[in-house]
Amino acid sequence: MASIKPSVPKGTRDFSPAEMAKRNFIFDTIKSVFRKYGYQQIETPSMENSSTLMGKYGDEGDKLIFKIINSGDFWSDAESKKQKTEGFEFSAKSLLPIISEKALRYDLTVPFARYVVMHQNEITFPFKRFQVQPVWRADRPQKGRYREFYQCDADVVGSPSLLNEAEFVLIYDEALSKLGLKDFSIKINNRKILSGIAEVVNKADQIVDMTVAIDKLDKIGLEGVSKELLERGFTEENIEQIKPIILLEGTTEEKLASLRSVLANSDVGLKGCEELETVFNYLKSFTMQNGKVELDITLARGLNYYTGAIFEVKTNEVQMGSIGGGGRYDDLTGMFGLKDLTGVGISFGADRIYDVLEELKLFPEATSQSTQVLICPFDAEGEAYALPLLQQLRNKGINTELYPAGAKIKKQLDYANNKAIPTVIIIGGDEMVTGQLTVKDMVNGTQQKLTVPQIITKL
Amino acid sequence: MASIKPSVPKGTRDFSPAEMAKRNFIFDTIKSVFRKYGYQQIETPSMENSSTLMGKYGDEGDKLIFKIINSGDFWSDAESKKQKTEGFEFSAKSLLPIISEKALRYDLTVPFARYVVMHQNEITFPFKRFQVQPVWRADRPQKGRYREFYQCDADVVGSPSLLNEAEFVLIYDEALSKLGLKDFSIKINNRKILSGIAEVVNKADQIVDMTVAIDKLDKIGLEGVSKELLERGFTEENIEQIKPIILLEGTTEEKLASLRSVLANSDVGLKGCEELETVFNYLKSFTMQNGKVELDITLARGLNYYTGAIFEVKTNEVQMGSIGGGGRYDDLTGMFGLKDLTGVGISFGADRIYDVLEELKLFPEATSQSTQVLICPFDAEGEAYALPLLQQLRNKGINTELYPAGAKIKKQLDYANNKAIPTVIIIGGDEMVTGQLTVKDMVNGTQQKLTVPQIITKL
Repeated sequence: MASIKPSVPKGTRDFSPAEMAKRNFIFDTIKSVFRKYGYQQIETPSMENSSTLMGKYGDEGDKLIFKIINSGDFWSDAESKKQKTEGFEFSAKSLLPIISEKALRYDLTVPFARYVVMHQNEITFPFKRFQVQPVWRADRPQKGRYREFYQCDADVVGSPSLLNEAEFVLIYDEALSKLGLKDFSIKINNRKILSGIAEVVNKADQIVDMTVAIDKLDKIGLEGVSKELLERGFTEENIEQIKPIILLEGTTEEKLASLRSVLANSDVGLKGCEELETVFNYLKSFTMQNGKVELDITLARGLNYYTGAIFEVKTNEVQMGSIGGGGRYDDLTGMFGLKDLTGVGISFGADRIYDVLEELKLFPEATSQSTQVLICPFDAEGEAYALPLLQQLRNKGINTELYPAGAKIKKQLDYANNKAIPTVIIIGGDEMVTGQLTVKDMVNGTQQKLTVPQIITKL
Repeated sequence: MASIKPSVPKGTRDFSPAEMAKRNFIFDTIKSVFRKYGYQQIETPSMENSSTLMGKYGDEGDKLIFKIINSGDFWSDAESKKQKTEGFEFSAKSLLPIISEKALRYDLTVPFARYVVMHQNEITFPFKRFQVQPVWRADRPQKGRYREFYQCDADVVGSPSLLNEAEFVLIYDEALSKLGLKDFSIKINNRKILSGIAEVVNKADQIVDMTVAIDKLDKIGLEGVSKELLERGFTEENIEQIKPIILLEGTTEEKLASLRSVLANSDVGLKGCEELETVFNYLKSFTMQNGKVELDITLARGLNYYTGAIFEVKTNEVQMGSIGGGGRYDDLTGMFGLKDLTGVGISFGADRIYDVLEELKLFPEATSQSTQVLICPFDAEGEAYALPLLQQLRNKGINTELYPAGAKIKKQLDYANNKAIPTVIIIGGDEMVTGQLTVKDMVNGTQQKLTVPQIITKL
């Protein structure tokens, strides 16, 4: 067989043992916090029926969904369609629904909605679920953007209580603090406040234009935002009205007071203020770890989707886009015929969190996932001598390897170094005679002679 | 939007929280044992280049690989191919390589081989890796056969030592014992013995016919095997020669002695005996838990692949096909141009193990993955009262939920029951006045009044 120079498809990645240990550190930490807050794991299939996915992410999204070609003779289906359908012309668009019935999931949200509707009779509501699985997007790959990547979502459906919003703030705080982050902001806004602002300037139908503009405050400043609002059809007067909201400063109480006065004539706006206040009141009963909660009314994120709270998380330690986000949506399952089920959820950006922890050197040196001891025999006799010790150490729960006989000690020590194994036990002729084994600390290079019971005590 | 009755593609499954807890119990147990023996986790992308996968599993295998359709205008590529290529006719077969460049992995072995070749300069050999990821096959779905299922593999490449074979026996023993199995057989054979048998009856070129026949001994008995061997061109004399091997009985030592005498004229056969003896000698130094090792020369499994040891694991507690298997192969990476790298590996059949544990009721009742305490407030006042308690319990590492105010206690207790939450704390008016909270044991139905410090001590 001709030899093929192997590669992976662009935008996809292999994960080495060292990378997996780091990724597991992130996922295990987040999962343990989800569980502490009562969220339960589900998994859904990688492939969904195309009808489940198509049309849920807009035309652009549809193009980015990876489609799976039907098995067997897909072409005869296409030909028979052409014969039966007057005016049918072959094209990618016309062929796609005929030759492909399944597609890879694009996110975890639509499959979750499908899951809730399909299993509604088995589910106890409120249903608190989390899901950590890969998703696939046929996006142009670039730095930090992949065609296969893990999403890490928690949602609760069937509970309108704002306690859920407060708990998501706590989940972000606890998980990111546990990962070692020292300074991060959990920004919170409410879609109803954005609706209220659009309402008081009589531009309710232009809420998207408005929020797209003010969302850029960070990047383009007030002047830039004003210019963009003008271009998008807002008047100077509108901008004067909005300005105090955009530049909102002070404590949360002060911000809410300002908002209430500006939004005095908007029921929906005042409702948004009330919801935010309730969330902040809940949070007063809890001690946060390293996160800071901030009311940020410029926060919009996927506006058409959210109906209440909107979350976004950013680290203040390194330059990086948001490492988490989410919000409340009132009709997630409506697309599958189950109406009026309210939900709220958050997501962790695992790949970005990975980059942040790497840059801040926050990954633990060794983990319980690594080998702790390597036994290095000089020869086959040493190997035989080592077998009972190998089992004793493992019985104590110590991850232990025995290097098979036949390799030089130098090679065995290199192996230990490359695998970052902290302790090696060397077994040569002397050691077998005296029962005093050479124990080498691979971190500081020291070594000592110890008996097997002494070794077990030490480890 | 029209409502769609949602479903999943045939042969795929959703996993509910209860199922996930059980699946995690299996995967976490196996992973922890892999790690204890020095195996490190890797992950490879779900999709591989078609050139990586196609041709590796035979013609039938190729058909079962799920292909991903190229994004964008795949049809114009097909048309341009037709224009440029004389005699090109549209068909599923001719179109496939043009409109699809990527496919979903079919197993973990070929991607692992690709990984080893691609990363050979970063890898320290011997390379001990494990991998737990889904694979996809366009097989006809039936009971116990899915189109998406997890494989759970460990392999070591670059080490010819038979210590690895012995350690895989120990890994099976420890993992399956940890999962609660009380009686299972780890069967072991060696391809060289099968080659030797074929050699001594002068049918070396018919080794596949021979092993396919004797592999059926369990099902069709000696008479059936003899009949099949005759049909496949073996003589009565051949069968007389093979019979003592097929009916091999006694201890491992006795079996090996019989084999040695029958295979006295076959170098390869004797080499197989020697290898098996070495593995059994290694195992004498270890105490096995609940597994029994058995030499079984009828064991063949994917013969063309394996070159040395062959493993298969069966439970003796319930009727079920093999729950694990593997073996040694001498040229895994040759297909990608890296020659002569020996490897040996095993696989756990997670779906079958799931069914076995379910049938034997071996899944743990509650796990650390479930909520341990539900706090049930009568009203908003009780909810506010509960907030500090909620945080205290979580700070102690106890998975705790607070049911949001507004639901009747009956509904809250149903929620606890459905989620199998063992303890609920009820907070009503009396409780807030006295500080004595009602703690209900949901398993036996008893309840008592306790203060917060008492609750924390109790839990």
